Amino acid sequence: MLEAPKFAVVLSGCGVFDGSEIHEAVCTLLAIDEAGCSYQCFAPNTWQAKTIDHFTGQSTAIAGDDDNRNVLAESARIARGNILDLSEFRAQDFDAIVFPGGFGAAMNLSDFAAKGAHCEVNEEVKRALEESYKQGIVIGAMCIAPVVIARVLGKHSIKVTIGHEPSVADGIRQMGAVHEEAGATDVCVDKENKIVTTPCYMLAKSIKEIARGTQNLVDAMVELM
Amino acid sequence: MLEAPKFAVVLSGCGVFDGSEIHEAVCTLLAIDEAGCSYQCFAPNTWQAKTIDHFTGQSTAIAGDDDNRNVLAESARIARGNILDLSEFRAQDFDAIVFPGGFGAAMNLSDFAAKGAHCEVNEEVKRALEESYKQGIVIGAMCIAPVVIARVLGKHSIKVTIGHEPSVADGIRQMGAVHEEAGATDVCVDKENKIVTTPCYMLAKSIKEIARGTQNLVDAMVELM
Repeated sequence: MLEAPKFAVVLSGCGVFDGSEIHEAVCTLLAIDEAGCSYQCFAPNTWQAKTIDHFTGQSTAIAGDDDNRNVLAESARIARGNILDLSEFRAQDFDAIVFPGGFGAAMNLSDFAAKGAHCEVNEEVKRALEESYKQGIVIGAMCIAPVVIARVLGKHSIKVTIGHEPSVADGIRQMGAVHEEAGATDVCVDKENKIVTTPCYMLAKSIKEIARGTQNLVDAMVELM
Repeated sequence: MLEAPKFAVVLSGCGVFDGSEIHEAVCTLLAIDEAGCSYQCFAPNTWQAKTIDHFTGQSTAIAGDDDNRNVLAESARIARGNILDLSEFRAQDFDAIVFPGGFGAAMNLSDFAAKGAHCEVNEEVKRALEESYKQGIVIGAMCIAPVVIARVLGKHSIKVTIGHEPSVADGIRQMGAVHEEAGATDVCVDKENKIVTTPCYMLAKSIKEIARGTQNLVDAMVELM
């Protein structure tokens, strides 16, 4: 029997408004485990763009402030401490790499939230994606995270979905990628480039839909291996 | 048709080492949604006993420090901002109340981690539990959280489980409750007192087991309504 497929899960903090969306991240880990695969969490060792009080919705710190938070340390909360610095990621050790959503993808992994199609992507995230594409492992992303994939790999005319938000879909097209509309739990499969995406909380109204969407995503990724 | 049963979910922060265990909390929300029930998250508006860097495992702040964290604000990350101060909880508005685990239960909801059987319980948590018991709604707890239930309701000779860790089981007996041994995904059902508990990460080795345990917990709670 072959070894169980291995997923790298790239987190961007811990909480929808300044990091990884927690339901999406946890349901992804669960879907990977349920599919009989294993996972290793990673996050870039960098500072959050800002820290948001999730009760009041107010920003409490920005980059440079002493009380701003570190993306790797916060992501470790979702991973129960079992997490590696993204600089240690090697595509050859994995069958797949997957990016949960949350504003962290658009504020910490990239600055898409501020700069749209002209955003810059964190250097380690960029390297991980380029190495994964070159190695031919399966790439997955959910919610807003497909914008990061589009920014790095748009030059290969990849196809992704973020649901049907027109401004984000426009940004994706400006970065050279194709945007395909999709429902909350649907997956968009780019077979040629081995990229799978799903809208999750860009459209979902309940945690049950997140469980379905992440399950569909992981199952489609396993099929492409 | 009756209205869908309503769960109050009481969080204690965001992260296994200083707050709510995130997988347990998220899988509980998912299990409630999958069972066709609804939920409202709550947390006490108080300071964490300490803040732990989940990457290094080191304490970065303790009660009284400026950079220590607030239990309600951190819990709001798991609830996507949709959370209420526990002081607003009224047992009559709910069919059940449930406590995910994590060190937050033993450091923020109570000080069991420091004082064992002689621990004090946060005033709002104590009120919520006493009101819930009096009102006859179903009470659930997982992982280490049953110690909080035992401290407040042990005088009624309730029966709970935390798996089979002898020192914690001893503490539970000292608080007047009965401890029943259980496997990772088993539930301990105290029909008379309407209390359901399950070990989760006191014993579980994978997130899949957390999904099973929380599902078993929620299903057993619905049966007692």
